[in-house]
Amino acid sequence: MINESMYAWGSEPSAIRQLFAYGLERKKAIGADKVFDFSLGNPNVPTPQVVTDTLKALLERSPETLHGYTPAQGDSATRQAVANEISKRFEVKASPDSVYMTVGAAASISISLAAVSHPGDEIIVNAPYFPEYRVWATQAGCKVVEVATKSDDFSLDTKAIADAITPKTSAIIVNSPNNPVGTVYSKQNLIELARVLEQKQKETGHPIYLISDEPYREIVYTETVPYVPSIYARTLVCYSYSKSLSLPGERIGYVYVSDEMDKEEHDKVFLAVCGAGRALGYVCAPALFQKAIAECVNVPSGVAAYAKNRKLLTEGLSALGYEYIEPKGAFYLWVKALEDDAKAFSEKAKQFELLIVPSDSFGVKGWVRISYCVSPETIVNSMPAFEALMKAYR
Amino acid sequence: MINESMYAWGSEPSAIRQLFAYGLERKKAIGADKVFDFSLGNPNVPTPQVVTDTLKALLERSPETLHGYTPAQGDSATRQAVANEISKRFEVKASPDSVYMTVGAAASISISLAAVSHPGDEIIVNAPYFPEYRVWATQAGCKVVEVATKSDDFSLDTKAIADAITPKTSAIIVNSPNNPVGTVYSKQNLIELARVLEQKQKETGHPIYLISDEPYREIVYTETVPYVPSIYARTLVCYSYSKSLSLPGERIGYVYVSDEMDKEEHDKVFLAVCGAGRALGYVCAPALFQKAIAECVNVPSGVAAYAKNRKLLTEGLSALGYEYIEPKGAFYLWVKALEDDAKAFSEKAKQFELLIVPSDSFGVKGWVRISYCVSPETIVNSMPAFEALMKAYR
Repeated sequence: MINESMYAWGSEPSAIRQLFAYGLERKKAIGADKVFDFSLGNPNVPTPQVVTDTLKALLERSPETLHGYTPAQGDSATRQAVANEISKRFEVKASPDSVYMTVGAAASISISLAAVSHPGDEIIVNAPYFPEYRVWATQAGCKVVEVATKSDDFSLDTKAIADAITPKTSAIIVNSPNNPVGTVYSKQNLIELARVLEQKQKETGHPIYLISDEPYREIVYTETVPYVPSIYARTLVCYSYSKSLSLPGERIGYVYVSDEMDKEEHDKVFLAVCGAGRALGYVCAPALFQKAIAECVNVPSGVAAYAKNRKLLTEGLSALGYEYIEPKGAFYLWVKALEDDAKAFSEKAKQFELLIVPSDSFGVKGWVRISYCVSPETIVNSMPAFEALMKAYR
Repeated sequence: MINESMYAWGSEPSAIRQLFAYGLERKKAIGADKVFDFSLGNPNVPTPQVVTDTLKALLERSPETLHGYTPAQGDSATRQAVANEISKRFEVKASPDSVYMTVGAAASISISLAAVSHPGDEIIVNAPYFPEYRVWATQAGCKVVEVATKSDDFSLDTKAIADAITPKTSAIIVNSPNNPVGTVYSKQNLIELARVLEQKQKETGHPIYLISDEPYREIVYTETVPYVPSIYARTLVCYSYSKSLSLPGERIGYVYVSDEMDKEEHDKVFLAVCGAGRALGYVCAPALFQKAIAECVNVPSGVAAYAKNRKLLTEGLSALGYEYIEPKGAFYLWVKALEDDAKAFSEKAKQFELLIVPSDSFGVKGWVRISYCVSPETIVNSMPAFEALMKAYR
């Protein structure tokens, strides 16, 4: 009959989405300003005006070429613009022939996993991690191997990663700036990871690809994000303009297969990416937005708004006595739950109309994720609720 | 190392795409007006002005809600508009809860196949058939079972379909108006198919889903297209606005899970569709185009232009002595090759700068597909080349 795995994934939406749906109902019931919805990573910063202006200008062009099929790997001008931008900003020389335009980061990761793994392989993820990794890796027929990040600073535990690698390990997913914690892995931390991967590849005789999931690369507060392809050659960068240009619903991103890889291997990996995109039903990335990206590839992100929210939220919660990890990037605050059971804590928070995601969804216990891509008013107005929540535990 | 199936699909693009790429090179070499490119189904009819106007008007809205994530199954206003349009035009009562917005028909079919099949199942296709069906069914772990359509009129051979059904058959793909032949299956033909499927389900005790791939439903010349869900309950309609509104690069379509299905089963199938979309990496269909579709769901297609092309092409080739199947829908002409080997015939045609796709790609021998979604000038100017090609065989 129907496929039970698909049914399970369809009938059990993610905890994040469930909380978001609850929030929508609750807002209808008691008013939107009474509910403090910190569930979803839907950017509140408006799409930059220059993107809107570019879209309007594009709509003046001949519609049959504007909306026509692009090649499967993307419009050539877009791929050139993306490669130029990568080369300009980072210490690599990117070729347009290494850029495959996708229908957003979820597609980038699904495609990359399908391209570099076989059913039965193992994929390493660093907990806490974005829960959909499990869905996409399982769909590729792979087993997810969770490795905890370091308990003090949530950096990559390269020793634990080394121990987790087996001859079946085909890829490791690294997400920096990190969702849900907001950490940015240091260059030193990534160099150690690269060393471990190199060493283990020698031992097992099996390549290990690094899937660098970096939709938050531009949302960073205190330091620059090291560019992974310049540290480890076997890297596939999975990027999206969802967060940097506030276009999450438009589904536009790319896979960049690092040019630092051995040339012959690079070309094979790139063709496998093309094949995986085809097999998963992606014909091309949305044409209008591909053309907009070609012209907006260097438009700066609205980090200032998130920095303001970050300050409001951390100062507010700090004054109330909450413990959290100081976020260096992305727009999430990782806060210690006030009881061992984060799910129970998230449920308790609902009583005060606070919607915060329990860490269990991300593969660890005892924390909650607060998305601060919301209006500053939401943060300010939520403080009495956070205070009442704190009091409820005293 | 890398996944060899994905590599194979990436390194061996479809014959259609190969011919298209050859055409682009050839046009560069000798001039675009000297090459008669009938390879691809890229609509030449411009996107209707009302769609462009709608997109422009939408861009005046608040960008964070315009470009934000929609629910995975689609924007509620869009789903309502699609359901209303289905109910208005066809003899069914469609619910918005049965509409799942997709990233185009390729996504619709990939998702539907994953939702209703298990690895090891068999999927029946009616030859000649769109070659990507094989890629998507294989990706779902299924075996493709080809059943030839009737040799006289290319209608569904329901007797042969009955013989091909086994307890492993989970779905049959039906594509009407048909790519590549242009046939529209009659209501009687579909009723016979439904009878066969009902009978076989009783025998095997296993449901068989009908995946109705109908991106050409609006491109029809001589008759109306019977609506499959009103004939067979276990139907998933896979639709796209690529052809009807000339938006192929924008990737916008839907799956409609027929409300004629048993309610409990319907809801399970719909959730499996949601789960399959999630597993394949689709987060939501492009948000801007979802909102445009909500307002343009009843915009008529530019059939008149295709009808003019069809007349020019069929009259021209008829006068030259070519044999073909009179197309009732879509924008393809199915022409008898002038030698047994259609690939050799297509190669010979290249000598006259005619780019026509050999039928081998579609699972049958001895024919070629001519896409007439081109300018009328291309058709008129190609006639001397078709004449020369004919002479070369005399």
